Order: sequence, then C-alpha cells, then structure tokens
Amino acid sequence: MTREAALGPDGRWIGAAVPRKEDRRLLQGRGRFVGDLAPPGTLYAAFARSPVAAGTLGSVDLTAARAVPGVVAAFAAADLALAGLRAVLERPEFRPSTMPILAEDAVRHVAEPVAVVVAEDAYAAEDGAEAVIADIEPGTAVSSLRQALDAAPQVHDGVAGNIFVDLTMFDDPEIDAVVDAAPLVLTETFTSGRLAALPMEGRACLAEWSDRDEQLVVHVSTQVPHQVRTAIATSLGLPESRVRVVAPDVGGGFGLKCVAGREEIAVAAVAHRLRRPVKWVEDRQENLTAAFHAREQEYDIRAAFDADGRILAVDADIRCDVGAYSAFPFTSGVEPLMAATELPGPYKLRHYRARSRAVATNKAPTAPYRGVSRPQITFVMERLMDKAAARLGFDPAEIRRRNLIVKDEFPYTGVTGITYDPGSYRESLDLATERLRAEGWYARRDAARAEGRLVGIGLSCFSERTAYGTPAFMQRRMAMTPGYDVSHIRMDPSGTVFVTTGTASHGQGHETTFAQIVADQLGLHPDDVRIRQGDTDVGGYGWGTFASRSVVVGGGAARRAAVLLAERVRRAAGHLLEADPGDLVLAGGAVAVRGVPAASMPIAEVARIAHFQSYRLNGDHLLEASASYDPPGTFSNATHAVVVELDPGTGRTRILRYIVVEDCGVIINPLVVDGQVRGGVAQGIAAALYEQIRYDEGGQPVTATLMDYLVPTATEIPPIEVLHLETPSSHSETGAKGMGEGGTIGAPAAVVNAVNDAAGTQVLDTIPVRPEQILGVLT
Amino acid sequence: MTREAALGPDGRWIGAAVPRKEDRRLLQGRGRFVGDLAPPGTLYAAFARSPVAAGTLGSVDLTAARAVPGVVAAFAAADLALAGLRAVLERPEFRPSTMPILAEDAVRHVAEPVAVVVAEDAYAAEDGAEAVIADIEPGTAVSSLRQALDAAPQVHDGVAGNIFVDLTMFDDPEIDAVVDAAPLVLTETFTSGRLAALPMEGRACLAEWSDRDEQLVVHVSTQVPHQVRTAIATSLGLPESRVRVVAPDVGGGFGLKCVAGREEIAVAAVAHRLRRPVKWVEDRQENLTAAFHAREQEYDIRAAFDADGRILAVDADIRCDVGAYSAFPFTSGVEPLMAATELPGPYKLRHYRARSRAVATNKAPTAPYRGVSRPQITFVMERLMDKAAARLGFDPAEIRRRNLIVKDEFPYTGVTGITYDPGSYRESLDLATERLRAEGWYARRDAARAEGRLVGIGLSCFSERTAYGTPAFMQRRMAMTPGYDVSHIRMDPSGTVFVTTGTASHGQGHETTFAQIVADQLGLHPDDVRIRQGDTDVGGYGWGTFASRSVVVGGGAARRAAVLLAERVRRAAGHLLEADPGDLVLAGGAVAVRGVPAASMPIAEVARIAHFQSYRLNGDHLLEASASYDPPGTFSNATHAVVVELDPGTGRTRILRYIVVEDCGVIINPLVVDGQVRGGVAQGIAAALYEQIRYDEGGQPVTATLMDYLVPTATEIPPIEVLHLETPSSHSETGAKGMGEGGTIGAPAAVVNAVNDAAGTQVLDTIPVRPEQILGVLT
Repeated sequence: MTREAALGPDGRWIGAAVPRKEDRRLLQGRGRFVGDLAPPGTLYAAFARSPVAAGTLGSVDLTAARAVPGVVAAFAAADLALAGLRAVLERPEFRPSTMPILAEDAVRHVAEPVAVVVAEDAYAAEDGAEAVIADIEPGTAVSSLRQALDAAPQVHDGVAGNIFVDLTMFDDPEIDAVVDAAPLVLTETFTSGRLAALPMEGRACLAEWSDRDEQLVVHVSTQVPHQVRTAIATSLGLPESRVRVVAPDVGGGFGLKCVAGREEIAVAAVAHRLRRPVKWVEDRQENLTAAFHAREQEYDIRAAFDADGRILAVDADIRCDVGAYSAFPFTSGVEPLMAATELPGPYKLRHYRARSRAVATNKAPTAPYRGVSRPQITFVMERLMDKAAARLGFDPAEIRRRNLIVKDEFPYTGVTGITYDPGSYRESLDLATERLRAEGWYARRDAARAEGRLVGIGLSCFSERTAYGTPAFMQRRMAMTPGYDVSHIRMDPSGTVFVTTGTASHGQGHETTFAQIVADQLGLHPDDVRIRQGDTDVGGYGWGTFASRSVVVGGGAARRAAVLLAERVRRAAGHLLEADPGDLVLAGGAVAVRGVPAASMPIAEVARIAHFQSYRLNGDHLLEASASYDPPGTFSNATHAVVVELDPGTGRTRILRYIVVEDCGVIINPLVVDGQVRGGVAQGIAAALYEQIRYDEGGQPVTATLMDYLVPTATEIPPIEVLHLETPSSHSETGAKGMGEGGTIGAPAAVVNAVNDAAGTQVLDTIPVRPEQILGVLT
Repeated sequence: MTREAALGPDGRWIGAAVPRKEDRRLLQGRGRFVGDLAPPGTLYAAFARSPVAAGTLGSVDLTAARAVPGVVAAFAAADLALAGLRAVLERPEFRPSTMPILAEDAVRHVAEPVAVVVAEDAYAAEDGAEAVIADIEPGTAVSSLRQALDAAPQVHDGVAGNIFVDLTMFDDPEIDAVVDAAPLVLTETFTSGRLAALPMEGRACLAEWSDRDEQLVVHVSTQVPHQVRTAIATSLGLPESRVRVVAPDVGGGFGLKCVAGREEIAVAAVAHRLRRPVKWVEDRQENLTAAFHAREQEYDIRAAFDADGRILAVDADIRCDVGAYSAFPFTSGVEPLMAATELPGPYKLRHYRARSRAVATNKAPTAPYRGVSRPQITFVMERLMDKAAARLGFDPAEIRRRNLIVKDEFPYTGVTGITYDPGSYRESLDLATERLRAEGWYARRDAARAEGRLVGIGLSCFSERTAYGTPAFMQRRMAMTPGYDVSHIRMDPSGTVFVTTGTASHGQGHETTFAQIVADQLGLHPDDVRIRQGDTDVGGYGWGTFASRSVVVGGGAARRAAVLLAERVRRAAGHLLEADPGDLVLAGGAVAVRGVPAASMPIAEVARIAHFQSYRLNGDHLLEASASYDPPGTFSNATHAVVVELDPGTGRTRILRYIVVEDCGVIINPLVVDGQVRGGVAQGIAAALYEQIRYDEGGQPVTATLMDYLVPTATEIPPIEVLHLETPSSHSETGAKGMGEGGTIGAPAAVVNAVNDAAGTQVLDTIPVRPEQILGVLT
C-alpha cells in the first residue's frame, strides 16, 4: 500500500517506470495459483495416455484402476460422453476435425488422454492411471511433414491427404513473369523446429460444482477465461451461464494457455459428475508431450530481386506440421494463415504468391506460441535479405534500407491488402547499426576474423501485426471471430477505482499498465486503480490475452471506460464546485476549475459525497461505466542486432552483444516493455540455438524431459540492451502498440544471420541451428 | 434448472406467481450461510461482556484468558485501538455519542462487549471469554424512560439529561386554540414494549485477510453490505477499497442487520491483526441481550375531533427509549423522527404538533425493526379512532371513512409536507368490512356477546411510507444520507442475464422478483435472469434492504438497467434482422419485427453473435449497462380486520379471523407478497400479545432466553387471509410500492382494538397487551 511510483517525465502515468504492482505479491509468495487451491474434499486427477502414436482403440478396462486404494472413480470416453472440441474456419479449403476430450475409437498421438482417474491424493491417481488397460491396435505413425504429404496413412478418416488447410491466399498473376525476368532469383528452403511454449507453471485446473449457485466453477491457469468457459460449456452441454471460469495468478502462458485443453474439460466434467472438487496440475513430462506444441514449419521460397537489391517477388510454399488435431478456438489454420498473411513483413514487396498448408501428423496438436509464425517468416525474409546482399554485394543493412517501408509511405497498404499504421522501420535499423558502429563492432569483427576467430554480425528487421481486434481476425474467417474487449469501471466511496477487463494477464503486468492508463484519465495515482481480471462471473467480457493485443484492446477499453467515468466525476464535481463540468480538470487526485487553483477538491471527496450525500449532486451520482473497444490492429516494429562468436571446436555459439531497437508506439511502462523484450529475446535465442521437440520415426517423443529439451539459462542468455523509438499508433486509443511477442520474433533471424556471417556462409537455414550443422559448414 | 413458472394473466412476468428461485436451494439445504463457512485455519471468537448495566471500567486483565488451552489471542479496547461508531444527525437538537467497539472507560449496558477472545475452537473461545477479568466499578443503572428523564445519572457524559434527540418537528401555531374549541378532546398515553427482531439466524461473521489482494474479506449476515463495509473501514482506519463485505445467504434480518454490529467490527479487526480467518456466530442469549432492540416508546397525546368525527388536531409528545448508544448508520433518531414524521398516517389531519425525543438508558442500543415506529403510530392513531368513535357514537369503520384520504385527493400533501402518491385507503377499509359482514362476523360477535362470550372486532387502517430514496432520508438530515441503488446488467453468450443490485435480500425473494422485473423488459424467462447481490466487490452499490425499499429502489434500478440492455439488444438485432431497432419487440425469448412474426430470432442467438461474430453488428455488440434509481418514496396502505375472543378465566386472546386488505401498488409476485404479509402479521401479533424484552430496575435483562421472550408459534398464529387492491404508484419505475413491513405495522392496532372491543372497554393502550391487563379490565 506504499506509493512507490512517480509520474513520468511528461507529467503523465503513461510512460512512467511504475514498479509492477503484482510483483510485490508474487515476489513475497503471496500469489495464488491453481496449485495453491485445495478446497476440502478435493480429488486429484491423473490421465491414462496413449503409449503409441497411432492406433485403433478398442475397450478401455478401468477395473484395475478403480481397485487401486484411494481411487474414487475412473472414466473413459464412453463414460463421460463429452462433445469433442471442433474449431472451424469458414473456408472451403478447411477440413474440420474433432479433438475428442478422451480418445474414442482411435489414438492419434503419444500421450493422448484415454482415461481419467480421480483419487483422494495425486499418488493414488497416478497409480490408478497406470492401471488402466487400453486395448490399442497400433497403426503406422505419420511422424513428419514429408511422410504426411507423401501418401502416408491418414491421421483422420475425414482429412484426405492429411491436409487440414490448403490455401493459396495470395496469387499475383504476374509473379512468374516477374521472377523469370529478375536479375537475381533465390530458390531456398527454410525450416523451423517444433517447440514447446514451456511456461514456468504448466497447465492446471481445479473444478468444483457450486451447489448453491448451480454452477460449475473452474479455476484454470489460462490466458482466455471466457473462451475456456465456452469450450467447457459446449463440451459438457451446459449454457455458459452454468460455468464460471476463474484464472487466478497464472505463471506464464506464451500461447499454450490461449486454447482449451482436453484435460481441463475432462476434469470439469468429472467434478460436475461427482459433485466434488477435482484438481489436476500438469507435470513437466505431460507439458512436454501432451500439451500443445508449435512452430514446426517448412518454407519453399522463390524470391526475386532487382540489381539494386529491391525485392520484387516472393513465391512461398508454406507447410506447417500442426499435429493430430485442430485446437480450439484458434483452429489448425492459425500458423499457416498467419504465416502467409504476414510474410512480407516490413518490406515493400511488389509481387506475392503464397500457398499455405496445415498438415496433420501423429504428434501432439499445436497451438499459438509467442509470435505465431512471425519468428519463422521473419527468419525467412531476413535470411533472404542476407543471401541477396551476399549475392549482389550489398551490405546487409543497405539492402534492408532499400526495401523497408519509410515514414512518408505510412499508412501503407501492401500486397496483402493490410494497412500498416506508422512505424520507424528504417530509423530502428539505422539506430541499431549506428550503435554497433559506435561501439566498434564492425571493426572488432574484422579484427577478430583477421586473427582467425569466427565472429559475425546479424540483423533482423521486422514489423509485427498486434492488437487483434475483430478486423484482424475476420481475414482468417474463424467461425468464432474474436475481437473486442469490454471494460467496466467503478469508483468506490474511498475514491478507489475498480476496473474489470477481459484480458488475462499471466506475467505481462496489466495490473500496473492498465492502472497507469486509467489513472491518467482520472487524475489518480495508479495505486488508486485496481484491475480485476480473469473471472468470467465478475465481468469484463473479452477474448483474453494473446497476439500482443492486451494493452491496445483491453487497455483501450479500460481507457474508454475511464473517459466515461471521468466525465461522470466532472459532472458530479460541477455541482460541488459550482462550475461547468467542461471547465474541470482531474489531476493529482483532485478536481479543479481550470485556471482557478483555489476552486478544487479531492476526487475522493467527490466519491464520498456521491455515495453518502448524493442529494448534493442532483442525480449525477452514478460513478460507473462500461465500454468496449475493437481496434483494427497496429504494427509495431524492431531491429535486432547481434554479434556472435563460434567455437570452431564444438560448434557452440556465444553471443557477444545483443541490441534491440524497438518501437511499440507510446510506451505505457518502460520497465514492462524492457522486461517483455528481454524475456522474448531469451525465448528467441532458445528457438535459434537450443530448443526443439523431437519425435522418432515411430512418433515417439524423444524430448520428454528438460534433460533433452534444452532450455537456455542465464549462462546462455547474454545481457540485452533495449533502445526505444516511439511512433504512436493511429490505430490505438493510447497510441500504444502490442509488444509482448517482438523479442521472440526478431531473435532467431538475427542470431542465425550472425552465425552465417561468422561461419562465412549463407547456407544455414534452419532454426534451431545446431552445433553439428555449424561444424558441418566450418569443415 | 427446470422452468416451473408460467407468465402471469396479462402476459407479463410481473404479476405472475413465480415460485421463489431461492427456495429450491434453501429447502434442499444448499444455501450457504456464514455458519457454513470455515476456511482452513479458522479461529473462533467469543466476547467477554459487561455483567452490569452501568459502571466505570478500569483494567481488563486478559492473562487468564490467554492461558486457556486453545486460546490464540485476546484483546481489550486498548489492544485494538478501533474508532468507535458515530452516527450523526445534522441537526442542532442532536447530541452525538460514540459507541465503542469494545468498552473503553465505561460500560453502559449489560452484555456490552468488553474483550474478544479467539481460539482454535468455539469452546476454548467461550472458556477464554469467561476467564477475562474486567475491573468494573458498578454505577447506578438508568433502566427506564421515566428514570432517564427524571434527573437520573447520565448514561453519557456528553449527553445532558440523557437526551440524544429532542425535536419539535411540527408546531402548528393554531393547535392550542383548535384543541380548546373542539367538541371532543382525548388525552391519552400509549406505550409499546421493547422488542427483539429475532431473525432465525442471529448475527454472524467470518473475517479473513486476503494476502493476495491485500484486502479484508468479511462475510457478514447483513442487510446492508456496503454500509457494513464503510463501518469496518472507518473503524479500522482503512479505505473502503481494502475491505470487501459479502452477505451470503442471510436467515432473516428484520432491521437488526441493517446496522453495523460491534462484534462484526471487532472480529474484522482481529482477523486483520492476526492474518487468520476469524468467525463469530451469535448465540440466542447474545441475540436477546447484546444485539440491537427496538420499539420501546411512550406517546402522550392530545387529540381533537369535531362532532362529525373528523380529527382536527393531534398534539404528540413522543419518547423513545433507544438504549445506550446511537446505532450506525441510522442514528438514535430513527425511531423518534420516523414516529413524528408519519404519525398522521392515512388521515386528513388538520393541525399537528409533535415533540419527539430519543432517550438514552442503560440497556442494549436500538436499531430499526420491521416497521420502525409505524406499528406504534398506527397503534396510536387507530386507538384514537376507536376511542373517538366510542365517545361520539360512531361505528369504528365509519369514523375512519370520514377521515381517510380518498382517491380524488391524491397526490395528497398533508400537515407533514410529505406528498402521498395514490392509494386505496377507503377502498381497502370498505373491502375489509364488507368481507367481515359477508362472513357474518358482526352478527356472530353480537350473538356471542348475547351468550356472554367476549368476542370483539378490531380494525386498523394505515399508510406506510416505503421505498426510501434520498428525498425521504433528507428530511432526517443524516450525515450519511442513504438513497439510490445501482444495478449493473450483462448478457452472456448463452443469452442469460446477470444483474447486480445493491439491495441484499435476506428472505424477501429478490432473486425471483427482480428477475421477473428484468425478464419483462427483455422478453426472457425469469430463469434466464440471475440476480447477484451482497458482494461489495462485485458491484451494484446501494444502501441495502430495509424500509421496504428494495423492490422499488433496487428493482427500479434493475428495470432501468434492463431497459438500457433491451435497447442494446434491439440495436444488435437490428443489424441481423435488417430492421429499425425501434420496430423490434422482445418477447418469449425472441426478438421479432413488429407485425412480421417470420422476421424473428432467438435472443440467445443475438447474444451468441454479439460475443462470437461481433463483426456482423457494426460495433453494436456491447451487452451491458449500469443504472441508478433514487425515487421520492411511495405510500402503500392496508386495512387489517381481526376478530378475537377473550378467555375470561385466563385473559388469553384467541384470534378467530384475520383479514388483510393490502395495496402495494403493482404486485410483482403474489406468492411473495402474501408470504411477506403473513410473516409480518405474525410478528405484529407477537408484538400485540406476546413478545417483550424486559429489564429489571438494575438494568439486568430478564428475558434472555426463548423461555422468557415469548415467540408465538403456529399454535398462536391463525390463518391469515390476504386480499389485494392494486393502485399503481406514480413514484416507482414498476408501479410497485414497498410492502415488506405492512403486516407488522397493521397487526398490533387491529388486535388490541379487537381486544378492547371484546372486553367492552377502550382503556387497553399498551402493546403488548398482557393477559393480566385484560383480566384487570374484565373484573
């Protein structure tokens, strides 16, 4: 309750380095996560899972499981009779599939849930799950994109050729002629490995039937409480009004928690059936094998450049290995569609064709993961730039400069038809390279090379479409088209403001940043603004936190609600100060007549009077309001600049310098922006050099623990300097743009470009780039 | 989840006999009361209380208490340092006092809390409380109005003559001349005994510090959650934003729970101090001795009538024994001020003077109790009518008819300056007496008398000011002037509507009646409307449920919010049905174009689209709204008609027939109205014949158990027939008037009038009228 924060340099809370309000509780161990909840009588759930990647499922014998001491009940699909999850794109090129909550007559990936066992403690539940006997006739696993596309067995009967989506989204009729005539044509293949989002806290839920309210209350570690409510309601055949989803503190999500999990729904169903609380907390092995993955993609690219280094055309064939099922609500189209739509990035591409496919395999299904295809498309474009620069004899910075959209071209509508709001594409590149130069990195690279050391510099430039309101999602034509967020605001008698929001912070610090946005409108301190989120019964409907949308969409709705409340406060104070509400200014916790500093009173006093002496306000006592916001989407941008040195003996990459110049429009809180960028870069470096989920040919996961799935630590992640440019968005209430994903998007391209530069080659075109691949080009 | 209810006769839900939604859970034992709550680690509180009525308090020795096994902590006033409760009238004639949470340097009534002891279980807590040694130097108790006014010791140093309030509210300069010239002057004294409200569930609370939210969460069995929040916040020195009050299911209140209790605040403070949950559930002895009482009043009246039975003048001296302290927030003025303001009742009184006093005594403090002074003023006026009728030779019904305000006189502004909205004062009297006549009761009374049996008929007519918004409270000039209520409404994707309200049903069935009001506006079934109340963090600020205000004020706010939401639903549907929103009608769960039945869609479908396909609605997707309502107050009215027979041997009164003709304007739900009337009449009969809190001369309570405090049972309470007239209010959104108190208001006068009639006298002027008093007039 201390007021640690001070106003920003321009006298506003927006822009001020306000320490995160949530950190006080999180650092003191006062957070409340699903794992902390255990109402009396809680049962613990464990899942029996498929040991094989593909097979026909016969009977599921639960007799032995039910006989395990402590086991209370066990259920297979037939016992619960739940509707499977069906996420649908409204496009003829989409073949829908249904993801059963528990496997029905087939299993389609290792670790697919087959039965759920609940017991008085977690140990008995695990023992019970092990005692489940599932009669599975193994089939042939489809374990790779190649195999899936090469007339392999079908993962789903209804999905011919294993193609969920096969879409030519852009098809410029002139493209072949342009490519044929171009001075430089690159024909390349790029691949990116499968990843796990790996939040610190895995998935978790606690479901409980409220006998009083006749309502299923489900605490879920989620980014999208309202969407999880709909998934549970749909699957159980209840109306949304009988389901309440609460996201308590959530220990990271990164996209994994913006879809509905089968386990959460099964647990909700069991709690509904047994009328007892049921809890499930994913362990790390489940998290690595049974949770949603992401990013396994291949790009076949033909790119044409003119002699001046200008990119003329890109012809892309994009294939995403999306695993066994389409995840709800974002569909299996999320990766291929986003890749195709946004591939051109910050560059003035003239001709574009993109075919994009979502391909079914017998692996864990996929979901959005921080950046959703943007790390890959940035990797593709930035590798193309470096390759073209090498071929044409340009400096890598110079070829980018020639292609980037520049200031006076905004708002820019490119080949995809999407309009970019203003950014600082060239300015961020210039600042990054100037910084490298000023620090002497170009000279130091050359000097090191002269000594035989393998030092390289890599750049990546990207723009990131953020703040997905309805317009951004309509292009994807999802049957459920997400978009707006709602905010409700209320001032209490102490003058404190409570704001509900549909976004669901799970590490982003919205309790702080949204409070700053609201505080500015009301002339209050951010400590006097409390953000409430994550409880579908408390209000603030919205689509949740993903796609770098929260500060723009949720924050915009909160700002709109605050504007309405400020108007009400001014109207109320007008009666007390005998002034026209239009002449009143809210600042520093007080309302004052403009130009008459003596005519002023504390806002808390207005609140008090509105509650306890409303007769003085002639009806203007209501201090609450609701607002929604549905923006068109904004583009943030950044340049990453990296210096690496390779170990010629081991192929190990060491990062010597990491600079980010980012532009997310108006910065709400620099501490939060820097934290997001740094965390994102760490995940991007992980994708570039370390992490990869791998399956063997039989579809068995071989990276099922953190011994095999290489998460970098503080040893691998270097200091990251973050520089800021601020180009306010014209598509945002606050001028802010989304920025939660940028760090992850820019890093893989910059790192791998630097590795190529250090290795003196341009052939390393995979992420992660592994030491053996680096050694391969060095010898 | 079954749809048991059917629309009312005029095709609306208002007026339909919808079974109470809350009864399903309450009757199945699925309610959740404070007593049902016990989070892990709960401590139990017990209070050491003063054994004497008056005294100087020295040291409070807690050593022995703390040594009791299981006791965790014990606190006296100095340990907790809480601000006492100070309820203030903004009138010069008011002398404020402070009610300490725990006694400080004096004790002022038996059972005043002196220390609080918390222990691991309730038994240890009780043992600990018994071990508290308070050094009290006993003083002289002021145990009666007479003694308090007769130069007795002062209960408070600052309250000279023990007068909290001494107010001449109305003072007609002509009144003495009118009385002197009148053909009939009655000079009478009427008294009413002290009562306990006696809800089935006594007071109870569970306070808990939320470490995550840095907030004190207090579950309280209360009628006024927001006011209890303010009391706790004020006393603990916290802003309201750090206190959340939740009223779960509440087992009756009757006014006792519309004030803040010292015990609840002490428990909140201990939980705040210890950071552990602390629970206290009042036992019946505490409820009868330490909870707030009501209704101990004396009236000295001079009343003048003309020869035609018209009442010319009333000159009243009103004295209320309000006990030791002024209760928060309603002040010790609540009884005397309400008595003086509303004494004239439904009659056209020409000249009026009223002096009204709140007098301090060494007894438990008082609070509003169902009807607040209206049972007494109705008793006074109705006894006057019977006495005048007897003296002037009129039939009791006839003299009333000559004085009642009649239809074409509404809106009527009388001697008090208050405007009465239309009622059916004479019509209800006529219907009651016609009914008695039709059933032959007049003839049967006369025949019984001829046989020597003591049968009598009693009438009472009254109007009741209800629906206290700000205007009604402003007259009292409370420092905190209650008034409006806020309602927030939200439609979820299933088309279910959630409504928050500041009123706090504790038996009244608002979950049903408010749902009916909202359902009509939205064309939904009441099962599709969920009312949420009682949680200060969830919203719907308001003053709570008391003074028969909820259906008008809270229900009016809910209706206003529903009107706003209906407009939004029509706007959204307009896009889908390609119609002007003004042409759309909401009915039967569907929205349809007026006159084009085929152009229609389910409202739930509109809700679904607004949430999941908002792009179809051109921005009109927000399905929530807030509204407040602050009505001027409405007058409901009724006539009670009672036939009794007295037992000449024992003085026992047996009720042979009980008819109520009531008019509460538009009836929202006849089942609820009948239930409220019947329950009220039962409490009124209790006040007329049975219940009385008594103290001995030393201020010791002698009615500390239900062996001594005579609560009537089904044996004593007869069948009660309720007839309805419906004169819609012009001061109400729905046309409804408040009606929760009427039964209690009308019964004492009607019963005692019947007793006088049966006894052939007009001298029984006390409530309760006791068998020995009846025997006294029979001999």
